[in-house]
Parts: sequence; structure tokens; C-alpha cells
Amino acid sequence: MRLAVVGLGLMGGSLGLAARERAGAEVAGYDPDPAAREAAVERGCVTTVHRDLREAVAGADLVCVCAPIGELPAAIAEVLGAAPGATVTDIGSTKSAVVASVPPDDRARFVGGHPMCGREVRGAQHAVVDLFVGATWFLTPIADTDTPRYRDLHAFVASLGAEPVAIDPGAHDRLLALTSHLPHVIANLLVNQAGAGRIDGHDPLSASGGSFRDMTRVAGANPRIWVDIFLDNREALAAAIREHRRLSDEVLAALERGDAGFLARWIAQAGTHRRRALEVAYERRPEEMVQIDAHVPDRPGVISGITQALGAARINIEDFELHHFTPERGGTIELVVVGAAAGDEAVALLDAQGYTAIATPVVSEEGA
Amino acid sequence: MRLAVVGLGLMGGSLGLAARERAGAEVAGYDPDPAAREAAVERGCVTTVHRDLREAVAGADLVCVCAPIGELPAAIAEVLGAAPGATVTDIGSTKSAVVASVPPDDRARFVGGHPMCGREVRGAQHAVVDLFVGATWFLTPIADTDTPRYRDLHAFVASLGAEPVAIDPGAHDRLLALTSHLPHVIANLLVNQAGAGRIDGHDPLSASGGSFRDMTRVAGANPRIWVDIFLDNREALAAAIREHRRLSDEVLAALERGDAGFLARWIAQAGTHRRRALEVAYERRPEEMVQIDAHVPDRPGVISGITQALGAARINIEDFELHHFTPERGGTIELVVVGAAAGDEAVALLDAQGYTAIATPVVSEEGA
Repeated sequence: MRLAVVGLGLMGGSLGLAARERAGAEVAGYDPDPAAREAAVERGCVTTVHRDLREAVAGADLVCVCAPIGELPAAIAEVLGAAPGATVTDIGSTKSAVVASVPPDDRARFVGGHPMCGREVRGAQHAVVDLFVGATWFLTPIADTDTPRYRDLHAFVASLGAEPVAIDPGAHDRLLALTSHLPHVIANLLVNQAGAGRIDGHDPLSASGGSFRDMTRVAGANPRIWVDIFLDNREALAAAIREHRRLSDEVLAALERGDAGFLARWIAQAGTHRRRALEVAYERRPEEMVQIDAHVPDRPGVISGITQALGAARINIEDFELHHFTPERGGTIELVVVGAAAGDEAVALLDAQGYTAIATPVVSEEGA
Repeated sequence: MRLAVVGLGLMGGSLGLAARERAGAEVAGYDPDPAAREAAVERGCVTTVHRDLREAVAGADLVCVCAPIGELPAAIAEVLGAAPGATVTDIGSTKSAVVASVPPDDRARFVGGHPMCGREVRGAQHAVVDLFVGATWFLTPIADTDTPRYRDLHAFVASLGAEPVAIDPGAHDRLLALTSHLPHVIANLLVNQAGAGRIDGHDPLSASGGSFRDMTRVAGANPRIWVDIFLDNREALAAAIREHRRLSDEVLAALERGDAGFLARWIAQAGTHRRRALEVAYERRPEEMVQIDAHVPDRPGVISGITQALGAARINIEDFELHHFTPERGGTIELVVVGAAAGDEAVALLDAQGYTAIATPVVSEEGA
């Protein structure tokens, strides 16, 4: 199989690497930037590299366009013209506009794509072969799509270790608005609201704890990329924000009338939804998952001491987090294991190392 | 020093334990529930335990009321009457209503309190001596407060390892509305919006990734506790939700008019705020912090192998997270170290173990 990758950044580079190593593909790479071409060659992302787009895509079975969202329609049009026999796909974070930009005559052989993975770093020099492993890879075939071409693309994506999922382009954008773009907007909103000023001399940002940091981790990330995503998906995102506002207003009204029943049902419903999300993510019954918390000192070797003891007891750690307080005070660890017996044993092992551990079900009957 | 603890749950029990072990206090405990009294005795949380409130608080220098928010005003009134010489405090999550409930004659010797810590588990059987270590412990002295009593309480809180911070009761509630209660509301809103239905057959909760899970971790937690907190702090929380709505509307308007400049400035501002929050939390310059990501297989010993190698190289891990995909696919680790040199060395050590690691600055020039 001959793959051409147009745009040799982190994603394009990783795609080339994975296609070569996992799918045995010959990969021709194109990038207008000499440094990007050089990095892709050095990292082994491409079989051949080209400074001319037409040369890169000539004879390709599949061309994947890995350009920034704003440049996608033009880049795809150019590729469709330069490689009249090839199947063409892309990896942009939004799909409606890109798919709609393809002229009717080329719609049979263009299928939009979006792998749900990435790193907060750029450049083919950081390419990793397993970037796509386990990731959902949305593909957006439409009525005009040529079925054999779609089937080949589906198989190619699966061969990289990703899980191809077919979805309508518009549905993709509404889904992403809800699960990614709205959360991103809200993380920025929360940080900007908390950072707007002091309350009676106290800085809310300084007073915020770990759960606030968890909720705002993506705040402030990559303005260049996110402005394009927000604007490209503005219709679905605006609808999601309006629905968020409507749901907020319901809670506001419940607060104002002191409606404890509404609030209790609303929180319980969130618990049910969260349990379902955990079940899908971990492929475990959330009821079996046990979280263990302990306070630990800040010194090298603490984590390995704990994980070694658990490993020796054949207790598999599903999730592990160390959150640092300060060098003087140490931090907390949270780990998740499966099964009450494993939880009790983990607590005993931690206690034996001098930490006071607490085991709690990840979800409880009265909420998650 | 003689401390009486009214309410022997996780918090009351941990307070007794810490007061005995860290402050050398004599601790008299009270709880109406025989099982709670028994657990507190077994765990060593109390010097003496009482089924009679008056007996427990008699002769106490300090009484700490550790009752649920809804019961606090009545419990505090009872304690103030039963222990006419004692300083009285509490550990409720909201402060205005409690402080206002104290009659004028007793205001000199009641000081509200709120330690910013806890566990998602109940009962004195889970009490831990270091629950308060490193935690901010808000104290809410008012104009009527007797200064020597406040000073003693401040010293007592510090002796448990916490950091006492004086704040006006109303400011406390506005601060917590912003940093804790609003984020909690939003986590529930996000999960309920994503869980409300399928989009073209796709379940948004199943399609959501790690950042969505991070943002909704507290969703569905303890309806009984959170309904009381939301309602008790409803005024400040409603104001925070209204401000959140106002800020959302600004973003909505920017999306509708396609204002890339507004969005870029807004994201950059969030990056600045997030950098400040990180700086306070880690007591490090965020610019020095490096995040390292790698994909790892799901088997016992992986984490300890990594942390041992880093420990042997004297690289201290500031933050460590393992997020699990599936048993077949393995998971990702994210760790944070300080300094570019430590980052490079950590990447080399991970590469040597066969993982492809990527180092990224935690904050970058163009956003956090």
C-alpha cells in the first residue's frame, strides 16, 4: 500500500510512522517546511520525502491531509486534483465544513477522518508509532462515498491500532461540541471567572484545590488551534453553549426556590451518567472499582515502593495519581484497583509501609 | 489542652486523632450514635467518649462541632449553652449562616472554621491523623471575636499541620462558590448534558475522553452533602452561576460574530490565570515544569519500573498519572518533573525501557 502524508507535523509524522511499522505501507511525505521534512526523515516517518505536493501524491492509493483546519479545504482540493485516482482523507477536528467543501465529482473518494488523540506538542520529531493505539478514529462517509474505498480506509485505520467509528459529519461536530469543545470553553470560563479579581483580599486561584485544577487543565491551551476549532464548529458549539445555559438556568431556579428535591435528583442523575462513562472507559463494572487514597512524603522512591509492593501482590493498578503539595508537606496518592479484596490488600500493603490509606468505592449507591 | 469533638465522623474522628497525636490534647468525644462512638474509641480518636453532650464538653477549652451543615446552628447553640467558658468552632463548608446564627452574647467565643480537605468516605473508622496536613483551614473571626481565643484556635489549627487563613464569613462563601461550588455544579451540568441522549446513534458519554472525565470527576458525588451545601450557600452560588452565564454569553456573541481576536485574547488570559494557579499549587515556576507522556502496557510492574529508574536518577516526580485504556491496549502515563534537564533525562530513561516518551513544557509562551 502506498500512503501519502500531506503535512508532516506531530500527527502526520506519527501517521507515517504507524503506517510504515504497523501496516507495512510505503509512505511518501510532503511538507512545505524543510525543517519538518528533515524531522520526518530523521524520525523514520516517511519512506520518501518531497518538497513538491504533486510528486508526493503521485501514485498513492491513499492520501491523508494533515493540515491545520483553516487550510484544509484548499489543501484537500489541491490533493484531489493532483491525485485523481487516490482515496483522500484528513484528520481535522471538525468535519462538516471540510466535507461540504469537496466538489460533487470528488465526493466518492474523499472520506473525512478525525483520530481522537494528540499531544500538546508539535513537530514530526515527536512522532510516536503508537499515538493512535486504542483511540477512536471517526470516519465520515456520506451517501456519495465509494464503499470499497471506505472499507479500505476503515481497515487501514484499524491496522494502526485505532478503532474506526463511522459517523455523519454533522453528528460528529455536534458530538465533539458536547464532549470536547464545550468542556474546553467551560475550562477557560472557570479560570477566567476565578482569576478576574480578589475576594476580600483573597485570590480565588490560590485558594482553589485539586478538583478545580482537574477541571481547568485544558484552559489556556493552544489559542491558535482552538480559535480555529471553535470558529469552524461555531454553530454546533453555540447550540451546546445555549443548552448549557438552559440547564444552568434550571439549577439557578431550583436554588432560588430552595428545591432540595430537584437538586438531589439532578445530582443522582449525574451519578448515573458518570457511572456509565466510567464503565465504557474502563471496561469494568464501576461498582467493582475501589479508590485508595493516602498521604505520602515528597521523596524519590515513594511511588516505586508502593507500586512494587502492589505489583508483587499481583494487584493491577487501573489508575494512579500523585498530586504534589509541597516539598515540606508531601502529597497525596490516589489509585484505583478492581475488586474489594484487592482494595483491602492494597490498603494493608500501604499501611505496612507506614502510610494511612483509605479505600472507597469509586461509585456508591447514593451517587458516583 | 482539653478539646471536645461533637460528632465523630471521618472529620471529627480525624480531628481527635490529630489533636491527640500532634497537639498532645486530651480529647473528649460525643456522638449520639453508639457505632460512631465505638469506631472513634477503636481508632484512638478520643481520650474519653460520651453519650451525653453536656458531659463531653464540660471543662473543655475548645469545642469543635463536626455536624452536618443542616444541624450546625442547633448543635452550636447547644454547645455554647453547655460549655459557657469554652471557645467553640465548627468545620462546616459554608460560613455566613452559621456565624449569623450565633447569639450576640456568644459571638466573642465562637469562631467559624472550614478545613479544605476530606475524603469521599465516612465514619471515624477511616480517621487519619494527617488529614489536615498542608490543607488551608479557613477561620472566620468577626469584629466581636475575642482576640486571645482566636489566637489560640489559630495556633491549634497550625499544630495539626494545616494552614490557618482568616477570612470574612461572607467572603469565604463567595470564594468557595467560585472555586468549589460552581465547579461542582458545572461538572454535574456537563455530565447531564452529555448523558441526555444519543447524537445520531452515538452516546456522547462513550465518545468522551480523558479531559471530559477529568472535568466531571466530582459529578454525582454525595447528593446528601452537596444539596445542603448548594442550598446553604445559594446566594453566593447563584451569583457565581449568573456571572458564569454572563461570561458564556460573551463567548457566544464572539462565536456568532466570528471574532477570532476576542477568542484568542480570552484563551490567552485563561493561560495566564492557569499559570498563576499552578505556580501557587506547586510552589514552582510553571515555566520550569515539564510534562512527560508515554504509552505503557497494562501489566504489574510497569509503573514501579519507571518510578524506580527515575528515583535512582534522583529525579523527583511532581505529579504522576496513569490513565488506563484497556487490558489489551494499555494506558498512558503523564508525569511532571522540574527542569528541562530532568525532563530530557526522564525521556531518555523511559526510552531505554522501551516506551516512546514525549516531553512538553507544562505552560508554553502561547498559552498554558
